[in-house]
Amino acid sequence: MESSVAIGIDVGATNLKAAVVDALGRVLAQLVRETAGLGPEQGIRQIARLVGELQSQLSLERSEIIGIGIGAPGPLSYRTGRIIRSANMPGWVDVPLRDRLREELGLAVTLDNDGNAAAFGEYWAGAGRDGGDLVMLTLGTGVGAGVVLDGRVLHGHFENAAELGHIIVAADGLPCPCGQRGCLEQYASASGVARRVVAAIKTGEPCNLADMVMGGQAIDAECVVESARAGDPLCLRVFDEACLYLGIACVNIQHTFNPARIVLGGGMSQVGALLVDRVAEYARRHTWSLHSDLPAIALAELGYDAGVIGAAGLAWQDYTGR
Amino acid sequence: MESSVAIGIDVGATNLKAAVVDALGRVLAQLVRETAGLGPEQGIRQIARLVGELQSQLSLERSEIIGIGIGAPGPLSYRTGRIIRSANMPGWVDVPLRDRLREELGLAVTLDNDGNAAAFGEYWAGAGRDGGDLVMLTLGTGVGAGVVLDGRVLHGHFENAAELGHIIVAADGLPCPCGQRGCLEQYASASGVARRVVAAIKTGEPCNLADMVMGGQAIDAECVVESARAGDPLCLRVFDEACLYLGIACVNIQHTFNPARIVLGGGMSQVGALLVDRVAEYARRHTWSLHSDLPAIALAELGYDAGVIGAAGLAWQDYTGR
Repeated sequence: MESSVAIGIDVGATNLKAAVVDALGRVLAQLVRETAGLGPEQGIRQIARLVGELQSQLSLERSEIIGIGIGAPGPLSYRTGRIIRSANMPGWVDVPLRDRLREELGLAVTLDNDGNAAAFGEYWAGAGRDGGDLVMLTLGTGVGAGVVLDGRVLHGHFENAAELGHIIVAADGLPCPCGQRGCLEQYASASGVARRVVAAIKTGEPCNLADMVMGGQAIDAECVVESARAGDPLCLRVFDEACLYLGIACVNIQHTFNPARIVLGGGMSQVGALLVDRVAEYARRHTWSLHSDLPAIALAELGYDAGVIGAAGLAWQDYTGR
Repeated sequence: MESSVAIGIDVGATNLKAAVVDALGRVLAQLVRETAGLGPEQGIRQIARLVGELQSQLSLERSEIIGIGIGAPGPLSYRTGRIIRSANMPGWVDVPLRDRLREELGLAVTLDNDGNAAAFGEYWAGAGRDGGDLVMLTLGTGVGAGVVLDGRVLHGHFENAAELGHIIVAADGLPCPCGQRGCLEQYASASGVARRVVAAIKTGEPCNLADMVMGGQAIDAECVVESARAGDPLCLRVFDEACLYLGIACVNIQHTFNPARIVLGGGMSQVGALLVDRVAEYARRHTWSLHSDLPAIALAELGYDAGVIGAAGLAWQDYTGR
């Protein structure tokens, strides 16, 4: 079936994105809709409608669609296809999303968490397409993560593997809303970086961004990095510390999964070479000198499409059984 | 072949241990020889001789031996069956141990590193025999480790996965001979615990063990734990810190592999319930409160036989292809 396609869906807190993806991981068409406030039944109908729109947009026969892959924020169960609950989508508690969509659409459906979908996308069609085990860190509001070993997403016995944003990197570090202290994402997420600069400004530390912050404007990681590039000492320090902890996380990933590559994505990865070079530098400085098994550290290549492409890739994997 | 057996071999720095192991992981016979100073050719002949002795001891036909499994200190390559080098066995540099033994014995041979073999042993016939992904930490001279996912040992792209003793737990911590700082094994290995007490005594800290140490006597983790049980503040603190870092390591393993269980073995595990309870307590205290996916933390059950049983188990796995 040369013209066969999969549909990948990325369920975010504010947007629902759907894309038609061919067997080589190319996006043939894409649609985005707002999701804010949708309950589960509305959400399921919205997904079904998007699939219908994409189908007619490309004049696809239903039989040309091999399946639907969905990436959604956890906690969810890949094995049972259920959303357990959602921090951002009210009412999504124990929703059998996979089976409901199967009924609604008459198509095979695969559900996985968004970090896993993005990692599989980069493995299949992005920075990891040359093959080899891959670990992806998505540096956004938090630090999402996914691990692909031997071509398969790692789920773990309790289906909570690869929560690398909550690796403890500082035994008595910053408190995290997850209930732990010193989680990687407090130091290395885009939000964490911005939050740390704001907190320091509020204690009186001088900073280029002080007027903005004290005037009530929101700042993001992009502001921090720009200000760091301009030589602001506070922003430099916070950005550098993010890179330090990411570097140590890379060393620990080296000694844990020993993958071929570690891919950095999400908002923070917009920083580009500056981020990846600094992280790799800290990793090299902290790893043992005797071995040459430090994974390649690379920027993600699919940007915000990693989720839909990876979700579609998981549908393709289920379909081909490889 | 109901009477079939595998032979497991544990190559240590001072001893070579060989055991006949049946399909259920039971040891039917066992022999130990000194290996100190043996070069590779002598070592290979020694292994072949031990296999012959065990064979005649149990009056086995060669055809009843389904294969030989070997656990040896790394770095080695499971895929090519070669010892890359050995810190403790002079002259063992790039030795094709698997193929040489195959020729010598006319039997199938599997080679893996000792941490992996021990983990597989516990998974197959010890603390993990109820199934589910397992991570084992062997707390001895260093901290050895092995990871069993879906019934298979995790090797990693560069075959250096599961080097969990060199996870960095303190960014600017104690120097480790591996070249890093703050490695888990500096805090949590049996040797690390003894070394830290000696270092503190030498800076003048009062301790029940001060007379022994200043008199030139060697102390080991067992002395430290006994002295801690007797209420010695220094020994208590060092033992407690070992448990703290092991607890944090367990949380990080939870968020990484999310296994069914974490098994603690090696010299330090002789401490028993005191160790495992304290580590589990620190893990619970440091993990997020919202989730219930903290792996069971358990003591190893096979003691010093984990290596030979696991090595034999790997031979069985290769033989049955499961």
